[in-house]
Amino acid sequence: MDEQLELFKQKLPRTIEWQGDRAVIIDQEKLPSELKFLEITSVEQMAEAIYQMNIRGAQAIEAAAACGLGLAAREFTGRDPDELRAYLEKQGALLTEVRPTAVNLAWAVKHCLQDLAGETTAELINNLNQTINQLLESEVEHNIEIGWVGAELIPDHARILTHCNAGSLSSIWYGTALAPIFTAHLAGQDIFVHVDETRPKLQGSRLTAWELERVGIDYAINVDGAAGYLMQQRKVDLVIVGADRIARNGDVANKIGTYSLAVLARENQIPFYVAAVSSTIDRNIVNGQEIPIEDRDPREVAPEGKNAENPAFDVTPAKLIAKIITEEGIHAPDNL
Amino acid sequence: MDEQLELFKQKLPRTIEWQGDRAVIIDQEKLPSELKFLEITSVEQMAEAIYQMNIRGAQAIEAAAACGLGLAAREFTGRDPDELRAYLEKQGALLTEVRPTAVNLAWAVKHCLQDLAGETTAELINNLNQTINQLLESEVEHNIEIGWVGAELIPDHARILTHCNAGSLSSIWYGTALAPIFTAHLAGQDIFVHVDETRPKLQGSRLTAWELERVGIDYAINVDGAAGYLMQQRKVDLVIVGADRIARNGDVANKIGTYSLAVLARENQIPFYVAAVSSTIDRNIVNGQEIPIEDRDPREVAPEGKNAENPAFDVTPAKLIAKIITEEGIHAPDNL
Repeated sequence: MDEQLELFKQKLPRTIEWQGDRAVIIDQEKLPSELKFLEITSVEQMAEAIYQMNIRGAQAIEAAAACGLGLAAREFTGRDPDELRAYLEKQGALLTEVRPTAVNLAWAVKHCLQDLAGETTAELINNLNQTINQLLESEVEHNIEIGWVGAELIPDHARILTHCNAGSLSSIWYGTALAPIFTAHLAGQDIFVHVDETRPKLQGSRLTAWELERVGIDYAINVDGAAGYLMQQRKVDLVIVGADRIARNGDVANKIGTYSLAVLARENQIPFYVAAVSSTIDRNIVNGQEIPIEDRDPREVAPEGKNAENPAFDVTPAKLIAKIITEEGIHAPDNL
Repeated sequence: MDEQLELFKQKLPRTIEWQGDRAVIIDQEKLPSELKFLEITSVEQMAEAIYQMNIRGAQAIEAAAACGLGLAAREFTGRDPDELRAYLEKQGALLTEVRPTAVNLAWAVKHCLQDLAGETTAELINNLNQTINQLLESEVEHNIEIGWVGAELIPDHARILTHCNAGSLSSIWYGTALAPIFTAHLAGQDIFVHVDETRPKLQGSRLTAWELERVGIDYAINVDGAAGYLMQQRKVDLVIVGADRIARNGDVANKIGTYSLAVLARENQIPFYVAAVSSTIDRNIVNGQEIPIEDRDPREVAPEGKNAENPAFDVTPAKLIAKIITEEGIHAPDNL
C-alpha cells in the first residue's frame, strides 16, 4: 500500500506547501481547466486567497491560516518578541474571520500560537516555522488514516454519492470524504462515485471530478437536485461527505445542500457518513445551532440586479448521521 | 379583479400565440437578458424549438404541439383528407416523442385530432385552426381558475418556495404553480417567493425570477441545495410546484429536484402543493413508476469530456403531496 500511495502522489499534487518564505498553493479557482500554482508571499495575500476560494476546504484553509501566520511573522519588523506574539494573535484573528464556519482556521491559529516558545523574535519565527511544517505533515498522516479507517465502511462495487469537494484539494493531501474511496480503490475495489456538482461554486464538478479522473475512479456528475432521485432509484449505496465544523453533540456544518442529502438518505435507508479530522470537532460548541453560517456574495448565485441569498453552509443534525469517521476511528455521532 | 388581470397582461406577455400561418413564441433561451419573440413557421422548426427549450413547460409545449399540427396541416400538399389525417397523426407522434415525460404534448395531439371533422382538406384545416384557438383560450381560463382556487391555500405574508418555472412562461399565460401566487398578489396579499435556481437549465433564476420581477412580487433566488436549509430555518411556509405528468394514483413527475423538496417539506412539516391543469393528469398511468423520465444531454450539466448524468425529471410519490390544485378544485392526491 505504501508504494501505491507514492504513485498516488504523482497523480494528486499537494494542495499547499510551506517553503519558509512563501506558501505554494494550487489555484482551485482555475481548476479543472488549468492546474496552476500560486505563490503566496504575504498574510494579506493569503487572506484574499482564502476569501476568493483560490484555496478552500476545511483542512486546506487550516494549513493556509498556519502559513499565513508564518508569512505575518516574516513581515514583522520589530524586535520585541511580545510585540511579535501580539501581532501574530491579531493577524490570526483576522484570518479566522475570513471564513467563519470552518473551525479549522481558528484551530490552526490556536495550535500555532498557544505553545509558541522563544526568547527572541528569531527563535519565535523559527519555532513557528517548525510548528507549521509539523502541522502539515501530521494532517496528511491523519488523512491517510481516515482512508484506512473509513475504507471498512465501503463494500466492493459500492456506488457512493458525495457533495462538494472533501478530497485532496480540501486538505493538504488525500482528503477526508474521498480518503476512504481512494484507499478502497488502491486496495483494488471497484467503485463508482456520483458527484453532486455543488452550486454555486461547483466544487463537485470542478474539483471532485478532477481528482477522481486523475486517479482513475469512475464517476458521473449530477445536478444537486438529482441526488434524491438517484437515491430513490437505488443507484446509491452510501453517502459520504466532509465537514467544516462538528459540534460536541455530533451536529455537522458542511457545504450547503448537505442537510438535504442527509434527509434524503434517511428517507431511502441509505447510510450517511461524515469524514473529518479531529481538528474539525469544536468542543466549545454544544450543538449545531451555535455554528455561525457564512452568507456569501449573492452574485455567486445570480447576476447583478437579481435578488438572491447565498448561505454557504448548513447544519445536519447528528440523528441523521450514521457514523463520523476521524483519524481516530469510526464514531457514533453522539459519542465523539 | 378583471381589471387587474388586464393590467397584468401588459406585464406578462403571452408565451405563445397562434396566428393561423405561424406561431409566435417568447424565446425562453434568451431570457432574462432579452425578451425576444420567435416566429415558428414549420412543424420541424417547432419540434426543434421544443427540444432546445426555446419553449418549455408542460402547458406551453402542449400549445406548441397543437400549433405544430396547425403548421403541419399547412405544409400538407395533397388533396385527400384521409392522407392529411394520417400525416397529422404521424407529425403528432413525432412531436410527442420530443419530450417524453410531459403528457401534455400527447394530450394536445389527441385533443386536436380525435374529433377533427371535415369532408375536404380545407375543412379539416379550418376546423383544426379553430380547435387550436379554442384550446389556447380554454387553457388560459383554466390557469386563471387555478389562481382563484389555489389562492385559498396561500395565507397573507406567506413565504413560498417554488422550483423550476411553473409560471406564465410554462403555459400560454398565467401559469400553474405561480397562478395562485399571482392571484393572491393581485388581491393585495404580501408574498415572498424563494426561487430555486433549478439546475441545469436555471428556469428558476432565469424565468421565474423574471416573471416575479415584472409583476412586482418580492423574491430571492437560492441554489437548489439551499431549499432544505431554508425550510429547516423556518423561512418557508409552503412549497408549490407544477407538474409534467400526474399518474392516476397522484404520483407527480416534475422537474428534477422536486422529489427532494417534497421529502424535505415533510421532514419540516411544511405543506407541499402541486398545481396543474387537468390535461396533465394521465389516467392511463397507474402510478409514477410507469412515467418515462427524459434523460437529456449530459453537456447541459458538465462540459465535454466530463462524465455526467442528466435526468430531467423525477417522480414525487402521492403520499408526500398535501394537495393537488387543478382548475376544477383542490384535491387530495389519492382522490383526483
